[in-house]
Amino acid sequence: MNISKHISSPQNAMIKQLVLLQEKSRERRKQDAFIIEGKREISLAIKADYEIKSLLYSPDIISSGMVLDLVKNAGKQPELIEVSDAVYQKLAYRTSTEGVIAVVKTKKHALHDLQLKNKNALILVAEAPEKPGNIGALLRTADAANLDAVLIANPKGDLYNPNIIRSSVGCLFTNNIGIGSTSEILAFLKEKQIHIYCAALSASETYTKTNFMGASAIVVGTESTGLSEAWLKASTKNIIIPMEGQIDSMNVSVSAAILIFEAKRQRSL
Amino acid sequence: MNISKHISSPQNAMIKQLVLLQEKSRERRKQDAFIIEGKREISLAIKADYEIKSLLYSPDIISSGMVLDLVKNAGKQPELIEVSDAVYQKLAYRTSTEGVIAVVKTKKHALHDLQLKNKNALILVAEAPEKPGNIGALLRTADAANLDAVLIANPKGDLYNPNIIRSSVGCLFTNNIGIGSTSEILAFLKEKQIHIYCAALSASETYTKTNFMGASAIVVGTESTGLSEAWLKASTKNIIIPMEGQIDSMNVSVSAAILIFEAKRQRSL
Repeated sequence: MNISKHISSPQNAMIKQLVLLQEKSRERRKQDAFIIEGKREISLAIKADYEIKSLLYSPDIISSGMVLDLVKNAGKQPELIEVSDAVYQKLAYRTSTEGVIAVVKTKKHALHDLQLKNKNALILVAEAPEKPGNIGALLRTADAANLDAVLIANPKGDLYNPNIIRSSVGCLFTNNIGIGSTSEILAFLKEKQIHIYCAALSASETYTKTNFMGASAIVVGTESTGLSEAWLKASTKNIIIPMEGQIDSMNVSVSAAILIFEAKRQRSL
Repeated sequence: MNISKHISSPQNAMIKQLVLLQEKSRERRKQDAFIIEGKREISLAIKADYEIKSLLYSPDIISSGMVLDLVKNAGKQPELIEVSDAVYQKLAYRTSTEGVIAVVKTKKHALHDLQLKNKNALILVAEAPEKPGNIGALLRTADAANLDAVLIANPKGDLYNPNIIRSSVGCLFTNNIGIGSTSEILAFLKEKQIHIYCAALSASETYTKTNFMGASAIVVGTESTGLSEAWLKASTKNIIIPMEGQIDSMNVSVSAAILIFEAKRQRSL
Protein backbone atom coordinates (compact mmCIF):
# COMPACT_ATOMS: atom_id res chain seq x y z
CA MET A 1 0.00 0.00 0.00
CA ASN A 2 1.84 3.01 -1.24
CA ILE A 3 0.95 6.48 -2.26
CA SER A 4 1.13 6.09 -6.00
CA LYS A 5 0.57 9.60 -7.28
CA HIS A 6 0.68 13.24 -6.37
CA ILE A 7 -1.53 15.71 -8.13
CA SER A 8 -1.04 19.39 -7.43
CA SER A 9 -2.74 21.15 -10.32
CA PRO A 10 -6.52 21.64 -10.41
CA GLN A 11 -6.08 21.65 -14.21
CA ASN A 12 -4.93 18.02 -14.17
CA ALA A 13 -6.92 15.90 -16.66
CA MET A 14 -7.95 13.29 -14.07
CA ILE A 15 -9.24 15.98 -11.73
CA LYS A 16 -11.32 17.48 -14.51
CA GLN A 17 -12.78 14.02 -15.13
CA LEU A 18 -13.68 13.66 -11.45
CA VAL A 19 -15.45 17.01 -11.41
CA LEU A 20 -17.57 15.74 -14.30
CA LEU A 21 -18.29 12.60 -12.30
CA GLN A 22 -19.58 14.75 -9.45
CA GLU A 23 -21.73 16.87 -11.67
CA LYS A 24 -23.02 14.72 -14.52
CA SER A 25 -25.25 11.69 -14.26
CA ARG A 26 -24.37 10.84 -17.85
CA GLU A 27 -20.68 10.80 -16.99
CA ARG A 28 -21.28 8.49 -14.04
CA ARG A 29 -23.12 6.07 -16.33
CA LYS A 30 -20.42 6.28 -18.97
CA GLN A 31 -17.59 5.63 -16.53
CA ASP A 32 -19.53 3.24 -14.26
CA ALA A 33 -18.12 5.24 -11.39
CA PHE A 34 -19.09 7.89 -8.86
CA ILE A 35 -17.61 9.98 -6.08
CA ILE A 36 -17.98 9.55 -2.33
CA GLU A 37 -16.85 12.23 0.06
CA GLY A 38 -16.35 11.72 3.78
CA LYS A 39 -14.88 9.04 5.98
CA ARG A 40 -18.07 7.52 7.28
CA GLU A 41 -19.63 7.25 3.85
CA ILE A 42 -16.49 5.67 2.39
CA SER A 43 -16.33 3.15 5.27
CA LEU A 44 -19.95 2.17 4.76
CA ALA A 45 -19.38 1.69 1.04
CA ILE A 46 -16.37 -0.55 1.72
CA LYS A 47 -18.45 -2.54 4.21
CA ALA A 48 -21.08 -2.95 1.48
CA ASP A 49 -18.46 -4.37 -0.91
CA TYR A 50 -18.28 -1.39 -3.22
CA GLU A 51 -15.02 -1.37 -5.15
CA ILE A 52 -12.97 1.72 -4.37
CA LYS A 53 -10.94 2.54 -7.47
CA SER A 54 -8.95 5.49 -6.15
CA LEU A 55 -8.76 7.44 -2.96
CA LEU A 56 -7.69 11.06 -3.16
CA TYR A 57 -6.67 12.86 -0.01
CA SER A 58 -5.31 16.16 1.08
CA PRO A 59 -2.43 15.71 3.56
CA ASP A 60 -3.23 19.20 4.85
CA ILE A 61 -6.44 17.77 6.35
CA ILE A 62 -5.98 14.03 6.88
CA SER A 63 -2.88 11.95 7.60
CA SER A 64 -1.81 9.12 5.32
CA GLY A 65 -2.08 6.82 8.36
CA MET A 66 -5.78 7.58 8.68
CA VAL A 67 -6.22 7.09 4.96
CA LEU A 68 -4.57 3.65 5.10
CA ASP A 69 -6.71 2.74 8.07
CA LEU A 70 -9.83 3.79 6.20
CA VAL A 71 -9.18 1.41 3.30
CA LYS A 72 -7.67 -1.50 5.24
CA ASN A 73 -10.83 -3.59 4.81
CA ALA A 74 -11.36 -2.80 1.14
CA GLY A 75 -11.65 -5.95 -1.00
CA LYS A 76 -9.24 -4.63 -3.59
CA GLN A 77 -6.74 -1.99 -2.56
CA PRO A 78 -7.42 1.36 -4.23
CA GLU A 79 -4.89 3.62 -5.84
CA LEU A 80 -3.96 6.27 -3.26
CA ILE A 81 -3.47 9.76 -4.60
CA GLU A 82 -2.16 12.64 -2.58
CA VAL A 83 -3.59 15.94 -3.81
CA SER A 84 -2.84 19.58 -3.09
CA ASP A 85 -5.30 21.65 -1.12
CA ALA A 86 -6.24 23.50 -4.31
CA VAL A 87 -7.16 20.22 -6.00
CA TYR A 88 -9.08 19.03 -2.95
CA GLN A 89 -11.09 22.23 -2.73
CA LYS A 90 -11.98 21.90 -6.39
CA LEU A 91 -13.33 18.38 -5.87
CA ALA A 92 -14.96 18.76 -2.46
CA TYR A 93 -18.69 19.10 -2.75
CA ARG A 94 -19.48 19.77 0.88
CA THR A 95 -18.44 22.67 3.01
CA SER A 96 -17.26 20.43 5.83
CA THR A 97 -14.02 19.04 4.59
CA GLU A 98 -12.81 15.69 5.77
CA GLY A 99 -9.91 15.61 3.35
CA VAL A 100 -10.78 12.38 1.57
CA ILE A 101 -12.66 11.55 -1.62
CA ALA A 102 -13.16 8.13 -3.19
CA VAL A 103 -13.77 7.17 -6.79
CA VAL A 104 -16.02 4.16 -6.59
CA LYS A 105 -17.39 1.62 -9.06
CA THR A 106 -21.18 1.79 -9.36
CA LYS A 107 -23.36 -1.25 -8.70
CA LYS A 108 -26.12 -2.42 -11.01
CA HIS A 109 -28.83 -3.00 -8.40
CA ALA A 110 -30.41 -5.57 -10.72
CA LEU A 111 -33.56 -7.15 -9.31
CA HIS A 112 -32.37 -10.67 -10.09
CA ASP A 113 -29.32 -10.14 -7.88
CA LEU A 114 -31.42 -9.03 -4.93
CA GLN A 115 -31.34 -11.29 -1.89
CA LEU A 116 -34.11 -10.76 0.66
CA LYS A 117 -33.02 -11.37 4.24
CA ASN A 118 -36.37 -12.65 5.51
CA LYS A 119 -39.09 -14.74 3.98
CA ASN A 120 -41.61 -12.46 5.65
CA ALA A 121 -40.04 -9.46 3.98
CA LEU A 122 -40.88 -5.80 4.56
CA ILE A 123 -39.99 -3.73 1.50
CA LEU A 124 -40.32 -0.10 0.46
CA VAL A 125 -41.00 0.71 -3.17
CA ALA A 126 -40.70 4.29 -4.40
CA GLU A 127 -41.96 5.02 -7.89
CA ALA A 128 -40.12 7.75 -9.81
CA PRO A 129 -38.90 9.66 -6.77
CA GLU A 130 -37.64 13.06 -7.82
CA LYS A 131 -35.91 15.09 -5.16
CA PRO A 132 -32.54 13.79 -3.97
CA GLY A 133 -33.40 14.98 -0.45
CA ASN A 134 -36.52 12.81 -0.40
CA ILE A 135 -34.62 9.79 -1.67
CA GLY A 136 -31.98 10.33 1.01
CA ALA A 137 -34.64 10.58 3.72
CA LEU A 138 -36.36 7.40 2.46
CA LEU A 139 -33.04 5.56 2.66
CA ARG A 140 -32.42 6.81 6.22
CA THR A 141 -35.83 5.56 7.30
CA ALA A 142 -35.32 2.24 5.50
CA ASP A 143 -32.03 1.78 7.34
CA ALA A 144 -33.57 2.61 10.72
CA ALA A 145 -36.38 0.12 10.07
CA ASN A 146 -33.90 -2.47 8.78
CA LEU A 147 -36.07 -3.11 5.73
CA ASP A 148 -35.33 -6.11 3.58
CA ALA A 149 -35.06 -3.98 0.46
CA VAL A 150 -35.74 -0.60 -1.09
CA LEU A 151 -36.89 -0.83 -4.69
CA ILE A 152 -36.83 2.17 -7.01
CA ALA A 153 -39.29 1.93 -9.88
CA ASN A 154 -38.76 4.03 -13.01
CA PRO A 155 -35.99 6.15 -11.49
CA LYS A 156 -35.74 9.73 -12.72
CA GLY A 157 -32.01 9.96 -12.28
CA ASP A 158 -29.11 7.87 -11.05
CA LEU A 159 -28.72 6.91 -7.41
CA TYR A 160 -25.16 8.20 -7.21
CA ASN A 161 -26.07 11.87 -7.32
CA PRO A 162 -23.95 13.57 -4.63
CA ASN A 163 -27.09 15.12 -3.10
CA ILE A 164 -28.56 11.65 -2.56
CA ILE A 165 -25.36 10.37 -0.99
CA ARG A 166 -25.20 13.39 1.28
CA SER A 167 -28.85 13.45 2.32
CA SER A 168 -28.87 9.70 2.95
CA VAL A 169 -25.96 10.22 5.43
CA GLY A 170 -24.45 7.05 4.00
CA CYS A 171 -27.65 4.94 4.07
CA LEU A 172 -27.31 4.57 0.32
CA PHE A 173 -24.69 1.97 1.24
CA THR A 174 -26.48 0.23 4.11
CA ASN A 175 -29.66 -0.66 2.23
CA ASN A 176 -30.38 -3.52 -0.11
CA ILE A 177 -31.41 -1.56 -3.20
CA GLY A 178 -33.05 -2.82 -6.39
CA ILE A 179 -33.84 -0.79 -9.48
CA GLY A 180 -36.23 -1.62 -12.28
CA SER A 181 -39.21 -0.52 -14.27
CA THR A 182 -42.61 -0.57 -12.60
CA SER A 183 -43.54 -3.72 -14.52
CA GLU A 184 -40.30 -5.48 -13.60
CA ILE A 185 -40.77 -4.68 -9.93
CA LEU A 186 -44.40 -5.75 -10.01
CA ALA A 187 -43.33 -9.07 -11.56
CA PHE A 188 -40.61 -9.45 -8.90
CA LEU A 189 -43.08 -8.87 -6.04
CA LYS A 190 -45.71 -11.20 -7.51
CA GLU A 191 -43.22 -13.97 -8.13
CA LYS A 192 -42.12 -13.73 -4.48
CA GLN A 193 -45.77 -13.55 -3.32
CA ILE A 194 -45.26 -10.25 -1.56
CA HIS A 195 -48.40 -8.25 -0.80
CA ILE A 196 -48.52 -4.82 -2.41
CA TYR A 197 -49.83 -1.90 -0.34
CA CYS A 198 -50.03 1.30 -2.37
CA ALA A 199 -50.24 4.67 -0.65
CA ALA A 200 -53.11 6.27 -2.53
CA LEU A 201 -55.36 9.24 -2.04
CA SER A 202 -58.73 7.69 -2.73
CA ALA A 203 -60.69 4.44 -2.51
CA SER A 204 -58.29 3.40 0.18
CA GLU A 205 -58.28 1.75 3.56
CA THR A 206 -56.91 3.62 6.58
CA TYR A 207 -53.39 2.26 6.99
CA THR A 208 -53.85 1.34 10.66
CA LYS A 209 -56.55 -1.15 9.61
CA THR A 210 -54.22 -2.90 7.18
CA ASN A 211 -52.54 -6.11 8.24
CA PHE A 212 -48.82 -5.93 7.49
CA MET A 213 -47.93 -9.26 9.12
CA GLY A 214 -47.34 -11.07 5.85
CA ALA A 215 -44.59 -10.31 3.32
CA SER A 216 -45.37 -6.70 2.39
CA ALA A 217 -44.23 -4.02 0.00
CA ILE A 218 -45.24 -0.47 0.89
CA VAL A 219 -45.39 1.56 -2.31
CA VAL A 220 -45.21 5.35 -2.51
CA GLY A 221 -45.36 7.67 -5.51
CA THR A 222 -44.34 11.25 -6.09
CA GLU A 223 -45.75 14.16 -4.12
CA SER A 224 -47.06 15.79 -7.26
CA THR A 225 -48.73 12.94 -9.13
CA GLY A 226 -48.87 9.96 -6.76
CA LEU A 227 -48.60 6.42 -8.09
CA SER A 228 -49.20 5.33 -11.66
CA GLU A 229 -52.28 3.29 -12.57
CA ALA A 230 -50.20 0.13 -12.97
CA TRP A 231 -49.44 0.13 -9.24
CA LEU A 232 -52.94 1.03 -8.11
CA LYS A 233 -54.43 -1.77 -10.22
CA ALA A 234 -51.92 -4.43 -9.16
CA SER A 235 -52.10 -3.56 -5.49
CA THR A 236 -53.33 -5.96 -2.82
CA LYS A 237 -54.86 -2.96 -1.13
CA ASN A 238 -54.65 0.79 -1.52
CA ILE A 239 -54.00 2.44 1.80
CA ILE A 240 -54.20 5.99 3.08
CA ILE A 241 -53.01 8.08 5.98
CA PRO A 242 -56.05 10.15 6.91
CA MET A 243 -55.28 13.86 6.66
CA GLU A 244 -57.21 16.12 8.97
CA GLY A 245 -55.61 19.44 8.22
CA GLN A 246 -56.29 22.26 5.82
CA ILE A 247 -53.69 21.07 3.35
CA ASP A 248 -53.69 17.56 1.92
CA SER A 249 -50.01 17.22 1.65
CA MET A 250 -47.41 15.31 3.53
CA ASN A 251 -43.79 14.91 2.55
CA VAL A 252 -43.32 11.56 0.77
CA SER A 253 -40.54 10.44 3.10
CA VAL A 254 -42.72 11.30 6.10
CA SER A 255 -45.69 9.31 4.73
CA ALA A 256 -43.47 6.35 3.94
CA ALA A 257 -42.04 6.40 7.47
CA ILE A 258 -45.49 6.43 9.08
CA LEU A 259 -46.55 3.41 7.01
CA ILE A 260 -43.29 1.50 7.54
CA PHE A 261 -43.30 2.03 11.30
CA GLU A 262 -46.95 0.98 11.57
CA ALA A 263 -45.94 -2.28 9.88
CA LYS A 264 -43.00 -2.58 12.32
CA ARG A 265 -45.33 -1.94 15.26
CA GLN A 266 -47.72 -4.69 14.19
CA ARG A 267 -44.86 -7.10 13.66
CA SER A 268 -43.41 -6.39 17.12
CA LEU A 269 -46.62 -7.29 18.96
CA MET B 1 -60.17 48.93 -3.70
CA ASN B 2 -57.97 50.68 -6.19
CA ILE B 3 -54.51 50.18 -7.49
CA SER B 4 -52.71 52.83 -5.54
CA LYS B 5 -49.22 52.74 -6.94
CA HIS B 6 -47.13 51.68 -9.88
CA ILE B 7 -43.49 50.83 -9.44
CA SER B 8 -41.41 50.19 -12.50
CA SER B 9 -37.83 50.59 -11.33
CA PRO B 10 -36.03 47.80 -9.45
CA GLN B 11 -34.00 50.63 -7.90
CA ASN B 12 -37.08 52.00 -6.14
CA ALA B 13 -36.45 52.49 -2.41
CA MET B 14 -39.46 50.42 -1.32
CA ILE B 15 -38.38 47.51 -3.52
CA LYS B 16 -34.90 47.62 -1.99
CA GLN B 17 -36.52 47.45 1.44
CA LEU B 18 -38.57 44.42 0.42
CA VAL B 19 -35.49 42.58 -0.82
CA LEU B 20 -33.97 43.13 2.62
CA LEU B 21 -37.14 41.73 4.17
CA GLN B 22 -36.75 38.58 2.09
CA GLU B 23 -33.12 38.16 2.97
CA LYS B 24 -32.58 39.41 6.51
CA SER B 25 -34.10 38.05 9.66
CA ARG B 26 -32.97 41.22 11.47
CA GLU B 27 -34.86 43.36 8.99
CA ARG B 28 -38.03 41.31 9.46
CA ARG B 29 -37.79 41.82 13.20
CA LYS B 30 -37.11 45.54 12.80
CA GLN B 31 -40.04 46.09 10.45
CA ASP B 32 -42.38 43.52 12.05
CA ALA B 33 -43.09 42.36 8.54
CA PHE B 34 -42.27 39.59 6.11
CA ILE B 35 -42.90 38.52 2.54
CA ILE B 36 -45.23 35.84 1.22
CA GLU B 37 -45.08 34.68 -2.35
CA GLY B 38 -47.77 32.69 -4.10
CA LYS B 39 -51.54 32.71 -4.18
CA ARG B 40 -52.21 29.72 -1.99
CA GLU B 41 -49.85 30.87 0.72
CA ILE B 42 -51.32 34.39 0.71
CA SER B 43 -54.87 32.98 0.90
CA LEU B 44 -53.94 30.79 3.85
CA ALA B 45 -52.36 33.74 5.65
CA ILE B 46 -55.51 35.84 5.12
CA LYS B 47 -57.64 32.97 6.42
CA ALA B 48 -55.38 32.89 9.49
CA ASP B 49 -56.00 36.60 10.11
CA TYR B 50 -52.58 37.82 9.13
CA GLU B 51 -52.64 41.51 8.20
CA ILE B 52 -51.61 42.03 4.58
CA LYS B 53 -49.99 45.45 4.38
CA SER B 54 -49.33 45.60 0.67
CA LEU B 55 -49.81 43.34 -2.29
CA LEU B 56 -47.46 43.71 -5.22
CA TYR B 57 -48.33 42.11 -8.51
CA SER B 58 -47.07 41.89 -12.03
CA PRO B 59 -49.90 42.45 -14.54
CA ASP B 60 -47.80 40.47 -17.05
CA ILE B 61 -48.52 37.34 -14.97
CA ILE B 62 -51.71 37.90 -12.97
CA SER B 63 -54.80 40.00 -13.70
CA SER B 64 -55.96 42.75 -11.33
CA GLY B 65 -59.27 40.87 -11.09
CA MET B 66 -57.52 37.82 -9.66
CA VAL B 67 -55.58 40.05 -7.28
CA LEU B 68 -58.76 41.68 -5.99
CA ASP B 69 -60.35 38.27 -5.61
CA LEU B 70 -57.35 37.05 -3.64
CA VAL B 71 -57.66 39.80 -1.03
CA LYS B 72 -61.44 40.07 -0.86
CA ASN B 73 -61.57 38.34 2.52
CA ALA B 74 -58.67 40.25 4.07
CA GLY B 75 -59.64 41.94 7.35
CA LYS B 76 -58.07 45.22 6.36
CA GLN B 77 -57.67 45.97 2.68
CA PRO B 78 -54.03 46.09 1.62
CA GLU B 79 -52.39 48.67 -0.53
CA LEU B 80 -52.27 47.25 -4.07
CA ILE B 81 -49.14 47.97 -6.04
CA GLU B 82 -48.69 47.18 -9.69
CA VAL B 83 -45.05 46.43 -10.48
CA SER B 84 -43.11 45.98 -13.69
CA ASP B 85 -41.83 42.54 -14.62
CA ALA B 86 -38.28 43.68 -13.80
CA VAL B 87 -39.36 44.61 -10.26
CA TYR B 88 -41.26 41.36 -9.84
CA GLN B 89 -38.33 39.26 -10.94
CA LYS B 90 -36.13 41.07 -8.45
CA LEU B 91 -38.50 40.26 -5.59
CA ALA B 92 -39.57 36.75 -6.56
CA TYR B 93 -37.79 34.13 -4.55
CA ARG B 94 -39.10 31.06 -6.29
CA THR B 95 -38.59 29.99 -9.84
CA SER B 96 -42.28 29.32 -10.38
CA THR B 97 -43.78 32.75 -10.67
CA GLU B 98 -47.34 33.36 -9.68
CA GLY B 99 -47.07 37.10 -10.12
CA VAL B 100 -48.07 38.12 -6.62
CA ILE B 101 -46.14 38.96 -3.46
CA ALA B 102 -47.55 40.15 -0.14
CA VAL B 103 -45.94 42.24 2.57
CA VAL B 104 -47.43 40.89 5.77
CA LYS B 105 -47.34 41.90 9.42
CA THR B 106 -45.65 39.29 11.61
CA LYS B 107 -47.44 37.71 14.56
CA LYS B 108 -45.95 37.38 18.02
CA HIS B 109 -46.89 33.75 18.70
CA ALA B 110 -46.86 34.51 22.41
CA LEU B 111 -47.66 31.52 24.59
CA HIS B 112 -50.22 33.44 26.64
CA ASP B 113 -52.23 34.13 23.47
CA LEU B 114 -52.33 30.46 22.50
CA GLN B 115 -55.77 28.85 22.49
CA LEU B 116 -55.82 25.06 22.49
CA LYS B 117 -58.74 23.60 20.55
CA ASN B 118 -59.15 20.49 22.70
CA LYS B 119 -58.79 19.83 26.38
CA ASN B 120 -57.18 16.52 25.49
CA ALA B 121 -54.60 18.32 23.40
CA LEU B 122 -51.95 16.77 21.18
CA ILE B 123 -49.01 19.12 20.76
CA LEU B 124 -45.64 19.02 19.04
CA VAL B 125 -42.71 20.80 20.64
CA ALA B 126 -39.49 21.30 18.68
CA GLU B 127 -36.48 22.57 20.57
CA ALA B 128 -34.07 24.77 18.65
CA PRO B 129 -34.88 23.38 15.21
CA GLU B 130 -32.25 24.47 12.74
CA LYS B 131 -32.94 23.68 9.12
CA PRO B 132 -35.79 25.58 7.47
CA GLY B 133 -36.65 22.44 5.48
CA ASN B 134 -37.10 20.43 8.69
CA ILE B 135 -39.30 23.13 10.24
CA GLY B 136 -41.40 23.21 7.08
CA ALA B 137 -41.78 19.42 7.12
CA LEU B 138 -42.76 19.47 10.83
CA LEU B 139 -45.44 22.05 10.07
CA ARG B 140 -46.80 19.97 7.17
CA THR B 141 -47.07 16.92 9.42
CA ALA B 142 -48.66 18.99 12.20
CA ASP B 143 -51.27 20.26 9.75
CA ALA B 144 -52.02 16.77 8.44
CA ALA B 145 -52.46 15.51 12.02
CA ASN B 146 -54.51 18.58 12.94
CA LEU B 147 -52.42 19.10 16.06
CA ASP B 148 -53.65 21.53 18.69
CA ALA B 149 -50.40 23.47 18.61
CA VAL B 150 -46.80 23.49 17.50
CA LEU B 151 -44.47 25.06 20.05
CA ILE B 152 -40.97 26.19 19.13
CA ALA B 153 -38.58 26.31 22.08
CA ASN B 154 -35.45 28.45 21.88
CA PRO B 155 -35.79 29.18 18.16
CA LYS B 156 -32.55 29.64 16.24
CA GLY B 157 -34.02 32.05 13.73
CA ASP B 158 -37.33 33.66 12.88
CA LEU B 159 -40.27 31.67 11.54
CA TYR B 160 -40.75 33.98 8.56
CA ASN B 161 -37.66 32.82 6.69
CA PRO B 162 -38.76 32.35 3.05
CA ASN B 163 -37.36 28.79 3.08
CA ILE B 164 -39.64 27.88 5.98
CA ILE B 165 -42.67 29.39 4.25
CA ARG B 166 -41.84 27.54 1.07
CA SER B 167 -41.03 24.17 2.60
CA SER B 168 -44.13 24.30 4.80
CA VAL B 169 -46.23 24.72 1.61
CA GLY B 170 -48.32 27.25 3.53
CA CYS B 171 -48.68 25.17 6.72
CA LEU B 172 -46.92 27.96 8.59
CA PHE B 173 -50.33 29.66 8.39
CA THR B 174 -52.58 26.71 9.17
CA ASN B 175 -50.97 25.75 12.49
CA ASN B 176 -51.46 27.21 15.91
CA ILE B 177 -47.87 28.20 16.69
CA GLY B 178 -46.36 29.30 20.00
CA ILE B 179 -42.81 30.47 20.58
CA GLY B 180 -40.93 30.70 23.84
CA SER B 181 -37.88 29.65 25.76
CA THR B 182 -37.63 26.06 26.95
CA SER B 183 -38.51 27.13 30.51
CA GLU B 184 -41.51 29.17 29.37
CA ILE B 185 -42.86 26.27 27.34
CA LEU B 186 -42.25 23.82 30.18
CA ALA B 187 -44.20 26.13 32.51
CA PHE B 188 -47.00 26.42 29.94
CA LEU B 189 -47.31 22.64 29.59
CA LYS B 190 -47.21 22.03 33.34
CA GLU B 191 -49.79 24.68 34.05
CA LYS B 192 -52.11 23.05 31.52
CA GLN B 193 -51.30 19.57 32.91
CA ILE B 194 -50.08 18.27 29.59
CA HIS B 195 -47.90 15.15 29.68
CA ILE B 196 -44.44 15.61 28.24
CA TYR B 197 -43.00 12.84 26.05
CA CYS B 198 -39.44 13.55 25.03
CA ALA B 199 -37.87 11.77 22.07
CA ALA B 200 -34.57 10.65 23.56
CA LEU B 201 -31.83 8.24 22.62
CA SER B 202 -31.36 6.43 25.91
CA ALA B 203 -33.14 5.36 29.09
CA SER B 204 -36.32 5.49 27.12
CA GLU B 205 -39.49 3.51 26.59
CA THR B 206 -40.34 2.24 23.10
CA TYR B 207 -42.88 4.75 21.80
CA THR B 208 -45.47 2.13 20.90
CA LYS B 209 -45.70 1.20 24.60
CA THR B 210 -46.45 4.79 25.61
CA ASN B 211 -50.04 5.80 26.27
CA PHE B 212 -50.82 9.01 24.40
CA MET B 213 -54.53 9.07 25.30
CA GLY B 214 -54.18 11.97 27.76
CA ALA B 215 -53.18 15.53 26.90
CA SER B 216 -49.73 15.04 25.39
CA ALA B 217 -46.80 17.04 24.12
CA ILE B 218 -44.35 15.17 21.89
CA VAL B 219 -40.98 16.88 22.17
CA VAL B 220 -38.15 16.57 19.63
CA GLY B 221 -34.68 18.10 19.63
CA THR B 222 -32.12 18.70 16.95
CA GLU B 223 -30.59 15.92 14.88
CA SER B 224 -27.11 16.82 16.03
CA THR B 225 -27.51 17.25 19.79
CA GLY B 226 -30.99 16.01 20.71
CA LEU B 227 -32.92 17.62 23.56
CA SER B 228 -31.46 19.70 26.34
CA GLU B 229 -31.29 18.36 29.90
CA ALA B 230 -34.14 20.62 31.00
CA TRP B 231 -36.55 18.71 28.77
CA LEU B 232 -35.26 15.26 29.62
CA LYS B 233 -35.56 16.00 33.35
CA ALA B 234 -39.02 17.52 33.18
CA SER B 235 -40.43 14.84 30.94
CA THR B 236 -43.26 12.53 31.96
CA LYS B 237 -41.48 9.83 30.02
CA ASN B 238 -38.59 9.68 27.60
CA ILE B 239 -39.53 7.72 24.53
CA ILE B 240 -37.60 6.20 21.68
CA ILE B 241 -38.17 4.83 18.21
CA PRO B 242 -36.07 1.67 18.13
CA MET B 243 -33.49 1.85 15.36
CA GLU B 244 -32.45 -1.44 13.86
CA GLY B 245 -30.16 -0.26 11.09
CA GLN B 246 -26.47 0.42 10.78
CA ILE B 247 -26.88 4.15 11.29
CA ASP B 248 -28.65 5.62 14.27
CA SER B 249 -30.09 8.55 12.53
CA MET B 250 -33.53 9.47 11.39
CA ASN B 251 -34.59 12.83 10.04
CA VAL B 252 -36.19 14.87 12.86
CA SER B 253 -39.36 15.52 10.89
CA VAL B 254 -39.65 11.81 10.13
CA SER B 255 -39.23 10.85 13.81
CA ALA B 256 -41.78 13.44 14.88
CA ALA B 257 -44.28 12.14 12.34
CA ILE B 258 -43.91 8.53 13.51
CA LEU B 259 -44.55 9.58 17.13
CA ILE B 260 -47.46 11.90 16.27
CA PHE B 261 -49.21 9.33 14.12
CA GLU B 262 -48.81 6.63 16.76
CA ALA B 263 -50.59 8.98 19.17
CA LYS B 264 -53.29 9.57 16.54
CA ARG B 265 -53.64 5.83 16.00
CA GLN B 266 -54.18 5.19 19.71
CA ARG B 267 -56.69 8.01 19.94
CA SER B 268 -58.67 6.68 16.94
CA LEU B 269 -59.21 3.23 18.49
